[in-house]
Amino acid sequence: MPASELCFLSATELAELIRRRRVSAVEAMQAHIAQIERVNPQVNAIVTFHPERSLARAREADARQARGEPLHLLHGLPTAHKDLLPTRGVRTTWGSPIYRDFLPDQDALIVERQATAGAISVGKTNTPEFGAGAQTFNAVFGATRNPYDPARTCGGSSGGAAVALACGMVPIADGSDFGGSLRNPAAFCNVVGLRGSAGRVPKYPNKLGWNSLSVQGAMARTVEDVALMMQAISGPDARVPISLTEPGSLFARPLAREFAGTRVAWAPALGGLAPVDARVVAAIDAQRPTFESLGCATFEAIADFGDAREVFHVQRAQIFAATHAEHYARHRDLLKDTIVWNVEQGLKLTARQIADAELKRTALFERVYEFFERYEFLILPTAQVLPFPVEEPWVGEIDGRPMADYLEWMTSCWIITVTGHPAVSVPCGFSPEGLPIGVQIVGRYRDDFGVLQLAYAFQQATQFWKRSPPLAA
Amino acid sequence: MPASELCFLSATELAELIRRRRVSAVEAMQAHIAQIERVNPQVNAIVTFHPERSLARAREADARQARGEPLHLLHGLPTAHKDLLPTRGVRTTWGSPIYRDFLPDQDALIVERQATAGAISVGKTNTPEFGAGAQTFNAVFGATRNPYDPARTCGGSSGGAAVALACGMVPIADGSDFGGSLRNPAAFCNVVGLRGSAGRVPKYPNKLGWNSLSVQGAMARTVEDVALMMQAISGPDARVPISLTEPGSLFARPLAREFAGTRVAWAPALGGLAPVDARVVAAIDAQRPTFESLGCATFEAIADFGDAREVFHVQRAQIFAATHAEHYARHRDLLKDTIVWNVEQGLKLTARQIADAELKRTALFERVYEFFERYEFLILPTAQVLPFPVEEPWVGEIDGRPMADYLEWMTSCWIITVTGHPAVSVPCGFSPEGLPIGVQIVGRYRDDFGVLQLAYAFQQATQFWKRSPPLAA
Repeated sequence: MPASELCFLSATELAELIRRRRVSAVEAMQAHIAQIERVNPQVNAIVTFHPERSLARAREADARQARGEPLHLLHGLPTAHKDLLPTRGVRTTWGSPIYRDFLPDQDALIVERQATAGAISVGKTNTPEFGAGAQTFNAVFGATRNPYDPARTCGGSSGGAAVALACGMVPIADGSDFGGSLRNPAAFCNVVGLRGSAGRVPKYPNKLGWNSLSVQGAMARTVEDVALMMQAISGPDARVPISLTEPGSLFARPLAREFAGTRVAWAPALGGLAPVDARVVAAIDAQRPTFESLGCATFEAIADFGDAREVFHVQRAQIFAATHAEHYARHRDLLKDTIVWNVEQGLKLTARQIADAELKRTALFERVYEFFERYEFLILPTAQVLPFPVEEPWVGEIDGRPMADYLEWMTSCWIITVTGHPAVSVPCGFSPEGLPIGVQIVGRYRDDFGVLQLAYAFQQATQFWKRSPPLAA
Repeated sequence: MPASELCFLSATELAELIRRRRVSAVEAMQAHIAQIERVNPQVNAIVTFHPERSLARAREADARQARGEPLHLLHGLPTAHKDLLPTRGVRTTWGSPIYRDFLPDQDALIVERQATAGAISVGKTNTPEFGAGAQTFNAVFGATRNPYDPARTCGGSSGGAAVALACGMVPIADGSDFGGSLRNPAAFCNVVGLRGSAGRVPKYPNKLGWNSLSVQGAMARTVEDVALMMQAISGPDARVPISLTEPGSLFARPLAREFAGTRVAWAPALGGLAPVDARVVAAIDAQRPTFESLGCATFEAIADFGDAREVFHVQRAQIFAATHAEHYARHRDLLKDTIVWNVEQGLKLTARQIADAELKRTALFERVYEFFERYEFLILPTAQVLPFPVEEPWVGEIDGRPMADYLEWMTSCWIITVTGHPAVSVPCGFSPEGLPIGVQIVGRYRDDFGVLQLAYAFQQATQFWKRSPPLAA
């Protein structure tokens, strides 16, 4: 099999070939290294790259297999870690000049779990500074470019991961999501990103152990591969107070299910909550017959997300103030303006505002619970816009309507962040310009597997992921 | 069987007699009503009492059984609901004159689950105003008295529940615990109270859905009965964002287990963290051989609870400010001074204080996690003092050391509240004056069943619960 083909197999297929000794871990790694060396200079997705180390691990993997040792779930699969995740002995910058040369002495748990499951890291994927904003650029590594149009952004904050996947540099990658960071770049790059329930993938280390807004998770080109990776990275850890108790085998169940009569709320234009580019709405509406053909009964409806903006702004600001208090005090000049703004918003909050946000978050959750009593899924746009010029730090207006701040153009994602429902972004087609568009499938609380099942059926029916970006071929 | 004996059977025994038609639900209810009518005037535990309603339900229960319908877990067992829990059509005051005549239109979930499991409420149990403070008195109903010495307090805030159990007015009762309210009154009244993990017993309705400090739970005279009740009231509910996914059957497993070699940290004097009455320390130390005889290896040790006070004070104040903002704004004159103080503390907090508390809570959790890697259980006093005169609103000093505020004398309980570990209070003996003393068994995070297992073994070995209070005989 030609190396270029290896790089566009699904992770599930590649793992199976390695398991059956049709491809060695070293061959798989060599093919992906070659792809990175060829394509990455054009897109800047992998910002720390250690091919010798990766090849050495691949040789060890092959040796284990040759000795007949039991093989783990991700045996021999190349992966890449978001540069917000500490990696022992591998440079970790958080996209910040403060940590330009930082070498952590421990792996994040999600990193360790991938390694334990047999995956082999190729390096670190680019992210905005401290993950803030859905545009992947920073002062350390510059911008990551969209492989469908390198003049445009790949989104973010797990932008490097999405581009690496789209370009065949890795078959799986991790990411994290506070305001949409596993979903937005998936939509912009024609791949899949799952924001699971808080605690599904336990976060460790983590300064704010009870924070349920920021989660870590899996990205891949196919839904099946996301489920495969979730088997390895989800499940409880005693160091994580909010970790969910179900084991990773939750994701080993059959993805195929029947959807006859399943009630699906349809809101590609966000029900007017915030502006959405007409091309995004059109692409999603064009797939309504696909959902109907799966058996779903679709209804134009959206939950009442009133107060979501206030809750998100207050709690995000509060978390930024807590997380970046030290950075702000000691390195304010090295922080980008949107982070300074978010920290200052946080430090200005009154106890009353913080209390009100908590009360409103609960009331919002209850309204959305009632909505999901009537519908099993909610269809939203993942992003309100198409990938935009890479020089623009954030979207200033949509269809002529100016945005209030750097977060408003991500409303489609963070309304779900605050309620805590699981959501997956899956490829949904292309704009007339050939830019990828994602659809966001939101499911009932804690039903992470359910959203993957509907996304799987949709992807099986549409297969948009097979259209690789021109740069990667 | 004489009515007075029926009232001191364990819930497990009584349920079995009803199931086997040796006692009818009506007979059981009549016996408990008689006990309430005879003893309650001396202690004021049940503050809203509806015997006709209870008897009508008992007749319905007997009729169901006569028709051969399947019987639920708590079939025919009298129970009582803490007056902080809304009960549909039954007066609910929160111990506050603001709600002197309030009739809710819905049951709390924990109330509904008891009814669904077949338990029959006799009424409402007394609580301090809005549950604040571990001394059960309020302006609506007055004080609840300790049945071992009516001149003394029963503790709180689930004080009415503890007294009702101790006096044979009910075999099971619900309660809630923010700073120790399921544990402290259990210790003061010679019964058992389990503070389970946040989300174990889902709280609904609940204004602060993500709050993990305040939990609801079960009280009884025996550990076995607490486990029985937990089967009925624990398990997930989709309206509760932090509910744990394990079903109530978690508590149906065998309570008996081996403890040979189990490492138990021993800290009856709180390791000097806060003062503890010497009689409490002596009573717990006197039982160290009992734990050793079970096979436990005991070691004088306590986790590093540094910063727990700051975390608890900040987060409690914050929660009070959120929960009582309306009361404070509209009825400040009707709130007791400690609640006004707590709300005002909360409204004065800065964003930075709130952020610091979150960071410190996580760091504390990690230290305690590491401690529990070395020990499976931690033994603490439940209360730092013996039941004190009922006229004193809170403990002003211990062994001559003045307390900083109305919360300091409950340090033994709220250090565990902030880490979120499960803890049970189980009877541990009596002071020279004949006042009950409880021992607090703290277990690994989420291991609610484990703490019940050790408490069960200890109670089997000691049986202090069989010494009923003089008033109840």
